[in-house]
Amino acid sequence: MFQGTLREVVDGTEGGVASVVMDLDGIALESYAKPDSDLDIMTVGIELSVVLRSARQAAEALGAGATQELAIVADKMTTLVRQLNANYFVALSLAPGGNVGKGRYLLRTRAPELASELG
Amino acid sequence: MFQGTLREVVDGTEGGVASVVMDLDGIALESYAKPDSDLDIMTVGIELSVVLRSARQAAEALGAGATQELAIVADKMTTLVRQLNANYFVALSLAPGGNVGKGRYLLRTRAPELASELG
Repeated sequence: MFQGTLREVVDGTEGGVASVVMDLDGIALESYAKPDSDLDIMTVGIELSVVLRSARQAAEALGAGATQELAIVADKMTTLVRQLNANYFVALSLAPGGNVGKGRYLLRTRAPELASELG
Repeated sequence: MFQGTLREVVDGTEGGVASVVMDLDGIALESYAKPDSDLDIMTVGIELSVVLRSARQAAEALGAGATQELAIVADKMTTLVRQLNANYFVALSLAPGGNVGKGRYLLRTRAPELASELG
């Protein structure tokens, strides 16, 4: 269902490793990881859902409105998250030095398509 | 102490509103906000510290190493966070449409100076 789009996002981003569509409780709908990746994108999604919930609470407390995007740059992995609707998000993990701008662009432009599939 | 650098970061970023150096418990060391801003950067920092702690825990759980940067894009505010050392971070809030790339660049290039002042 989302497989083609997730693959397009991962393969279209230099350094892209894996991508997942999940709900805010960390339950994955679908994911795609590069064949040579040993990244457990399910675990990534579960951890991210905690961060995203805390970011949403912060934005709400600050009157900053709905959270659209989140990016976490760590030593060994960069993760981009984009909210699809009130309950779902899509995440993309990149290796260090990956093309973050391209990843953000692909998530942003593919989000409406993913959101419409969520109904 | 940090005032000049914080001001430089805010004024040097198109759409920059306020900046703060805080510890991970949300206690501010110093902040600067544009005179016409009604943003309470102290409250922003406190909320961010919660998000940053959760991002650090996630990165640790995933074996992704130390968290260097965090970005939260919400409807009415974008906030960039950069880790300075194990205990302190610097944050910059921008109005929607602000120059996120420039803000990230300024935080990254000024971080060593801020970190060295922390001792």
